[in-house]
Order: sequence, then structure tokens, then C-alpha cells
Amino acid sequence: MLSLEQKIVREGTVLEGDVLKVGSFLNQQLDVDFLMEMGNEIARIYSGDNVTKLLTVESSGIAVAVAAGAIMHLPVVFAKKNKSSNISSDVYSANVHSYTHNKDYDIVVAKDYINADDKIVIIDDFLANGKALEGLIEIVGQAGATVIGCTCAIEKGFQGGGDRLRAQGIRVESLAVIDKMSPDSIEFRK
Amino acid sequence: MLSLEQKIVREGTVLEGDVLKVGSFLNQQLDVDFLMEMGNEIARIYSGDNVTKLLTVESSGIAVAVAAGAIMHLPVVFAKKNKSSNISSDVYSANVHSYTHNKDYDIVVAKDYINADDKIVIIDDFLANGKALEGLIEIVGQAGATVIGCTCAIEKGFQGGGDRLRAQGIRVESLAVIDKMSPDSIEFRK
Repeated sequence: MLSLEQKIVREGTVLEGDVLKVGSFLNQQLDVDFLMEMGNEIARIYSGDNVTKLLTVESSGIAVAVAAGAIMHLPVVFAKKNKSSNISSDVYSANVHSYTHNKDYDIVVAKDYINADDKIVIIDDFLANGKALEGLIEIVGQAGATVIGCTCAIEKGFQGGGDRLRAQGIRVESLAVIDKMSPDSIEFRK
Repeated sequence: MLSLEQKIVREGTVLEGDVLKVGSFLNQQLDVDFLMEMGNEIARIYSGDNVTKLLTVESSGIAVAVAAGAIMHLPVVFAKKNKSSNISSDVYSANVHSYTHNKDYDIVVAKDYINADDKIVIIDDFLANGKALEGLIEIVGQAGATVIGCTCAIEKGFQGGGDRLRAQGIRVESLAVIDKMSPDSIEFRK
């Protein structure tokens, strides 16, 4: 998505440790008009796929998913991050390792909100090592539902998570894929 | 907002401890088409107020704020919840007491995203004791910006937080105000 690539170049800042700061439009501040453009693009990608539901994980993923849900007229379910190991029997759950914070957490979704008939698109803001997506895919599997595809706004291609999922046959269509970045330049995948 | 009151009656469940469960449309699952209706109502309430920005707090508040932002063509800033007491100098922050979890946390917003010229509407999903709103109002004050008003989707009027803020002269316009609730009935403020 060219307009997203241009926005990343214009407003993003590359920090130490492969961190891309896009707080002005995607993380702390949300450029809602631009989110709706991303929602339009997500709707275009999955038109004809009979998607029934969008799944994301709190917090920043919610904004992208709501934008897509508004265009696609679909409900959004968001997984909650749970630090306690106290998982009840009425939820689907998966363990996720965060490289950023170097710790594990559980993501949980109440069983009420995903069922076996659902055809799901998983949405998130960032895709790096792919651990959050793997957890969400595991939850969809627990429900017996189908993953149609995964779309993240920004994929850090050089961290390999997206390509590892693609190698497993999962459809991953990120809106912008960064293959290389430094404080001076950002290189996008063609 | 009559359609919201009807939806609460139809889909909500009142649990022990004054908990209203609305996971089917506002918390874990988001009925995005209905969120957009709420966004329309929020836009109507503040039409003519020259609002420049919406402010909310993660996580569920983001969905309501994005819906309003989409209709009003305004950016949304969301405060992050911070469990550490390690607050840097480049953020505004406020301490919030959660009665639900009986503990304190900090909410923080990077200084970059609110400035003194901003006219802000604060948005959240629930208003109970009003502690989260008070924290957000404090942050707007730290930035020297103006609070135009506060709108929550569902106000638990019987918990008094909204009325306490109104008594301080703050404009609080919730989309639905519950004055009394039990497992058998929910009574809305007229």
C-alpha cells in the first residue's frame, strides 16, 4: 500500500534495536482517516472470501481491525492479554512469547465469540517475529474455525515471522513490508 | 441513545458485584456497525464545538473512539496503562485507582500528541466511579488543552462518578445512563 509506505517514511522514526516508531498515526495517536484507508485496502484484499469475522489482539490492533470492520460490515473480536496463568474453561487461549519484553503472556478469547463456522481474517498493527499471529491462529484452530488470512499494517520482513507463516501455507498479506531499515533509510519489499 | 439502551437490554447480562457484561458488542466482541452508530451520535453531540482531538484509554475505549473519529474525521489519542512507576519526562501521566481490580495504575500520553490548542472530547466505554475520566482530564490539564466534554458509551449512574464530574462543571454526556440494575431489570435515566 503505497500511501502507507509514504506515511511510514514521512512520519516514522527508526530507533535502536529494530524499533520503528509510528506513534503519530498507528500506535499512540491514531490517524483515523488514514486507518479507514487501510480498512478499505483490507476490504479489497479479502473481497470475495466470505469473511465472517475479524480477530485481533489488544491494544493497537483494535484500531486497525475496527477500521476494517467498519468498511467490511463485520464484527471484530479481540483477544485479551492475560498475565495470570489462571485460564478458565470457557475461553480459548494460547501462550505468546514477546521478544520485545522478553516474557510470555497468554492471549484469551471467550468461546462465545468464535465458532466453527467462522471464516476469520486476523489483523494486527505490527508483524515481527509472528508470535502474536501464531497465538491467534492457534485460537482459531481451537474453535474449529478457518483462518482466511492474516493482515498486519506493518510487517518487519527482516524479522522473518511473516515469511515463516507463508512457508506454512498461511496467507499473509501485510499492507507494508519493510525488508531493511536504518535511521537513514527504509526499504520496502516490492 | 434509545438503540443502545435496547441493545443493552437485549444482549447485556447483569452479574454479581454491579458488573454489566456486554462482551457481545462492546468489550470482547465489537459490533462495528453499531459502534459506527454510536460514533454518529457522538458526532451529533459535539457538532459545532470545534473539537480537534479525541482522547481515550486502552483497550475497549479505543474502539468507541475510533468509530467517533471516523465520523468526525478527527485523530484519536489513547493513553496507555502503565504498571511500572517509571514515568519519563516526555509524557503526561496521571494515577488512576481501579475499584474493579483494587489497585492503582498510571495512564500516560506522550507529550507530542496533545498540545495547548487542542479542544478535546474524552471517550470511554464505561463510566462507573469516574476515576479513569478524572485521570484523562488531569492529563489534558497538564497539556494546557481544553476538555470540551466526556462521553462514555455506558454510564453506571448509580456509582456516582458521572454526577460527581457534572457537579464540578464538566460536561458529561453518556450515550446510556443506567440508574439501577439487577439480573431481572435495567432502569435507564430519562
